[in-house]
Amino acid sequence: MNVVVQHIERADPQVIAGLGECGVATVHEAQGRKGLLASYMRPIYSGARLAASAVTISAPPADNWMVHVAIEQVQAGDILVLAPTSPSDAGYFGDLLATSMQARGGVGLVIDGGVRDIRDLTEMGFPVWSKAVFAQGTVKETLGSVNVPVVCASALVNPGDVIVADDDGVCVVRREEAAEVLDKARARVAKEEKKRARLAAGELGLDIYDMRGRLAEKGLKYV
Amino acid sequence: MNVVVQHIERADPQVIAGLGECGVATVHEAQGRKGLLASYMRPIYSGARLAASAVTISAPPADNWMVHVAIEQVQAGDILVLAPTSPSDAGYFGDLLATSMQARGGVGLVIDGGVRDIRDLTEMGFPVWSKAVFAQGTVKETLGSVNVPVVCASALVNPGDVIVADDDGVCVVRREEAAEVLDKARARVAKEEKKRARLAAGELGLDIYDMRGRLAEKGLKYV
Amino acid sequence: MNVVVQHIERADPQVIAGLGECGVATVHEAQGRKGLLASYMRPIYSGARLAASAVTISAPPADNWMVHVAIEQVQAGDILVLAPTSPSDAGYFGDLLATSMQARGGVGLVIDGGVRDIRDLTEMGFPVWSKAVFAQGTVKETLGSVNVPVVCASALVNPGDVIVADDDGVCVVRREEAAEVLDKARARVAKEEKKRARLAAGELGLDIYDMRGRLAEKGLKYV
Amino acid sequence: MNVVVQHIERADPQVIAGLGECGVATVHEAQGRKGLLASYMRPIYSGARLAASAVTISAPPADNWMVHVAIEQVQAGDILVLAPTSPSDAGYFGDLLATSMQARGGVGLVIDGGVRDIRDLTEMGFPVWSKAVFAQGTVKETLGSVNVPVVCASALVNPGDVIVADDDGVCVVRREEAAEVLDKARARVAKEEKKRARLAAGELGLDIYDMRGRLAEKGLKYV
Amino acid sequence: MNVVVQHIERADPQVIAGLGECGVATVHEAQGRKGLLASYMRPIYSGARLAASAVTISAPPADNWMVHVAIEQVQAGDILVLAPTSPSDAGYFGDLLATSMQARGGVGLVIDGGVRDIRDLTEMGFPVWSKAVFAQGTVKETLGSVNVPVVCASALVNPGDVIVADDDGVCVVRREEAAEVLDKARARVAKEEKKRARLAAGELGLDIYDMRGRLAEKGLKYV
Amino acid sequence: MNVVVQHIERADPQVIAGLGECGVATVHEAQGRKGLLASYMRPIYSGARLAASAVTISAPPADNWMVHVAIEQVQAGDILVLAPTSPSDAGYFGDLLATSMQARGGVGLVIDGGVRDIRDLTEMGFPVWSKAVFAQGTVKETLGSVNVPVVCASALVNPGDVIVADDDGVCVVRREEAAEVLDKARARVAKEEKKRARLAAGELGLDIYDMRGRLAEKGLKYV
Repeated sequence: MNVVVQHIERADPQVIAGLGECGVATVHEAQGRKGLLASYMRPIYSGARLAASAVTISAPPADNWMVHVAIEQVQAGDILVLAPTSPSDAGYFGDLLATSMQARGGVGLVIDGGVRDIRDLTEMGFPVWSKAVFAQGTVKETLGSVNVPVVCASALVNPGDVIVADDDGVCVVRREEAAEVLDKARARVAKEEKKRARLAAGELGLDIYDMRGRLAEKGLKYV
Repeated sequence: MNVVVQHIERADPQVIAGLGECGVATVHEAQGRKGLLASYMRPIYSGARLAASAVTISAPPADNWMVHVAIEQVQAGDILVLAPTSPSDAGYFGDLLATSMQARGGVGLVIDGGVRDIRDLTEMGFPVWSKAVFAQGTVKETLGSVNVPVVCASALVNPGDVIVADDDGVCVVRREEAAEVLDKARARVAKEEKKRARLAAGELGLDIYDMRGRLAEKGLKYV
Repeated sequence: MNVVVQHIERADPQVIAGLGECGVATVHEAQGRKGLLASYMRPIYSGARLAASAVTISAPPADNWMVHVAIEQVQAGDILVLAPTSPSDAGYFGDLLATSMQARGGVGLVIDGGVRDIRDLTEMGFPVWSKAVFAQGTVKETLGSVNVPVVCASALVNPGDVIVADDDGVCVVRREEAAEVLDKARARVAKEEKKRARLAAGELGLDIYDMRGRLAEKGLKYV
Repeated sequence: MNVVVQHIERADPQVIAGLGECGVATVHEAQGRKGLLASYMRPIYSGARLAASAVTISAPPADNWMVHVAIEQVQAGDILVLAPTSPSDAGYFGDLLATSMQARGGVGLVIDGGVRDIRDLTEMGFPVWSKAVFAQGTVKETLGSVNVPVVCASALVNPGDVIVADDDGVCVVRREEAAEVLDKARARVAKEEKKRARLAAGELGLDIYDMRGRLAEKGLKYV
Repeated sequence: MNVVVQHIERADPQVIAGLGECGVATVHEAQGRKGLLASYMRPIYSGARLAASAVTISAPPADNWMVHVAIEQVQAGDILVLAPTSPSDAGYFGDLLATSMQARGGVGLVIDGGVRDIRDLTEMGFPVWSKAVFAQGTVKETLGSVNVPVVCASALVNPGDVIVADDDGVCVVRREEAAEVLDKARARVAKEEKKRARLAAGELGLDIYDMRGRLAEKGLKYV
Repeated sequence: MNVVVQHIERADPQVIAGLGECGVATVHEAQGRKGLLASYMRPIYSGARLAASAVTISAPPADNWMVHVAIEQVQAGDILVLAPTSPSDAGYFGDLLATSMQARGGVGLVIDGGVRDIRDLTEMGFPVWSKAVFAQGTVKETLGSVNVPVVCASALVNPGDVIVADDDGVCVVRREEAAEVLDKARARVAKEEKKRARLAAGELGLDIYDMRGRLAEKGLKYV
């Protein structure tokens, strides 16, 4: 019942990179407003932004044994995504594990739980999005699984899906849809550039989006 | 039932500026410890401080249509104050709306909900105090109202009231009381300067405030 | 029933300093994974780290009278630890009290409640770990006690215990165990240095900690 | 600054009784979906339902002195509505105060804080809607006000407003609007009876409300 | 992008009934401790227990349009499972919708949001497991989808999966695994009966499960 | 470091019984308003009330091995008090363990975590006060300790302390103080009886407690 899936598909590295440049809010819109992790997932420091392939971990509460198992499956450009099997804010991950991740080319962690050593992680430039910062230690007693589908912070994440993360939070893009989402996201960026210029020039959204008629029709009264 | 009030009274700009210099904690004390928004309202970046006139928005959950309507009502020096009609942490506001606000002289946002694009907002120097950071998109389907009284994060805010906000949170000052509150706040600042000097010199609050007698009377025992 | 204990034992200053250098996560591990305050206790600014002797305060909700009483008991190198008798996020402490603390050599505050003036406290370099930032004022009407055992954010703190605090949170070390915990913490730091080097060189935790056999025995399947 | 308003207007007793029969959900709809207190306000026992005139209390956290003051202002058919000036879950109210309330004809309590002795209150048939059940005691040290407007659990309540409460929660109706809201609520009840009969007979809301066209127009696909 | 899937597979009715008799805790164990919805999902009244086929709804926050659409897809023995696309505690469902559900043979609702009219629902014997009770109304403005996979209260639910719910909460069983899980659950029930008899007779779990050796080996000290 | 203390002192059974009759709110007041567990600790069913000697458990998150160990230490009239070493809402306890407890004369459970099988526990008349109801299973992998001091739901509980619990929550009384607290609690009950009679007769607390002078002195204005 506890498995480690050793071979997973990943999206095209250039697609992944492109999604990272677009950022969470844009990617989320571009794929039809789905895939966001819950808003309590916050970065341990400001300014980090990335996109990466998910290596997923289903782990028991307060037991980080599977993190060690997962790191062996990490390739350059991967990010760990850990979902506890019941809620936990224990500190599953610290600077030693981050050192190991960086040695293998791993680029970050998304955890619906706790993280510690955040001063060191910040100095190392190893970004983490987590539910909690908590120095509480974990054990290595109970098995979990690696590279199985998990529900992390209310979002379904499959191994190999693309994780996009920045100061706005975390979004998951299905691996199969990544290229199409990137196209839409880029189109959106381009369109927003034009709107931004018009708004900066003082035009109103009410006019740009032609909202006045529909507002009146719905019954909005100006008094 | 859904209205946009187009003409609101605002406080004297110099009074508003003065309140901003005094800061939230002082203004809150000066007006008799009232008017604070709930402590979960946090700035998206540290160091912002301002006072501004409230343009209020009562909006449906996860529907930001009224933000577009409200921006047309914004004058230089105004701040948007948005209260959802039921709890929501959706991302009502991002960099495009902030661009529009800045084009009209708007100076910030207070929202009992979510905000997104916080990296861009930070770079733009557009401060937001919010309940959540969340990239979740909103719709434009249901009417709300602009410039009506709202309860935002447990505080009643009338259009034209003065919002004072900094790293300590957000406080609302009734428009009619703004000048009087400023006087009291300045008196308080002056008084605190003197106390600060005495405390810095090593005097104890116990002595400066003459507390020892009353403590003994209430029965405090030193052992 | 309300007392101020005027003479408390403190740990050896060099031991205290040593614990501060080791940091919360290491000290917590070194003493057998106990003594952590709840994860909602967060610093008002990043980067602060210290160890200090606890002067404890048991205070009524939203009443900071006892803080004034406690400051008289503070010696150089002490930290205040305040636990309300029922939950409160009121702002018990601000820049004036911090000025008084610094005048007496006090180095910080841990409070299972609220703090305000955080911009000033940050500029003063006066670190606070708190449950909330809230400008809400307090009264001075009801007695509490100083230097009695308190439960603060789920941890028992005795007066004179050593508080270790940094970006990871707050940990309490029993005064009597401080020296022994420091020895273990230093041993741990040394050991971690070696592991870090091996991990940085690309070795896996699975091999360093010799986990493969036990994983197989428990039934982990690689597929 | 701390006042007791001794004379307040109340709505017509028959209007109040009528609103109580309609219940919270219906009244809330009838008045345009406003006036609800936050969903964390829960009854201490199931099955209570009432409407009553609000005697409001603005009280310090964990200080129930003003409850005693307020009870003198209570007339038959009144309900106390208590809002702490900062969040508190202390037990402001128990069986002795309920005895006093009942002696004066008071019919219940709505409190954005804690209540205790709930076994006794249940036996007495004295309903309470509260944020918490908590035996934590309060003090009688600091003044508040009685019969001033308060924000209670996110809703503005004026003295004399009508409180409607049942298992669904609590709703406030402006005194001036009570008669009109009752008319609308009764119309709604009548209309719902008809809909209920049609739905019970197996008709679909899709047809009763004629939704199919608009769903298709918005793009809903049946597959 | 918004779809209604009209034909879904369901598990064998006898298997479903059997799972309902076993109850949530047993089924959860029998399927390897997976599939639980978050612990904040609570029944609106005690004593309800059922198993049913999921008709799933992905709905916008505070918009219950899709509930009407979903009811047309309900067959006898089905339960609605509603997941908002961003967090909401609005009251999506009340007694009219329950009347419609019962007319079609629907047996309950699981909703990661709010419900209202709970007095009526209780009298009707229509069980609901929800995150909140809240009279706040919803709109019918924005499309969602019916019978698509949803993440509800942290668990992935596919249309046609078996929902098991009782006073302990809610558990989802994959349709394909339902028969096998039932076998394991029944075996578990039988085994527990025997253990219960031994425990009731005064035997200790320490002996029944033969734990003493392993405890000693791990280092537990009796003092 | 993990121990089972086999011999603990207990309070006089008649004192314990007396405290149970007085109830949580009265005992809490009688001992100077201390000893309450956090208000999130709620009974699984209404109407239970008891006092009992604490057998304490310090357990890892989501690991109930130590419950089996603790039950061997239970004598007639004891209650288990379980505090996880980091927050957990897993279901540590169900009907089999309750059967074992009852076989040994154990009378209940207080747990800063989760419980399951609450329908069975209710039928068995086995009361539990818990943070959560959650069917999530636990493991038996990691040691904890039995009969050591624990911090449970913010209160320090020593083995052998008296736990008083009812619908108002849970309170702990130090074993050494139990007799004295009982005397004070009984005096309080007697005194409250008299007050209740006067309040029921229509006298006001304002007069019974002679508050009018002090209110005027503090500046309360009647308008």
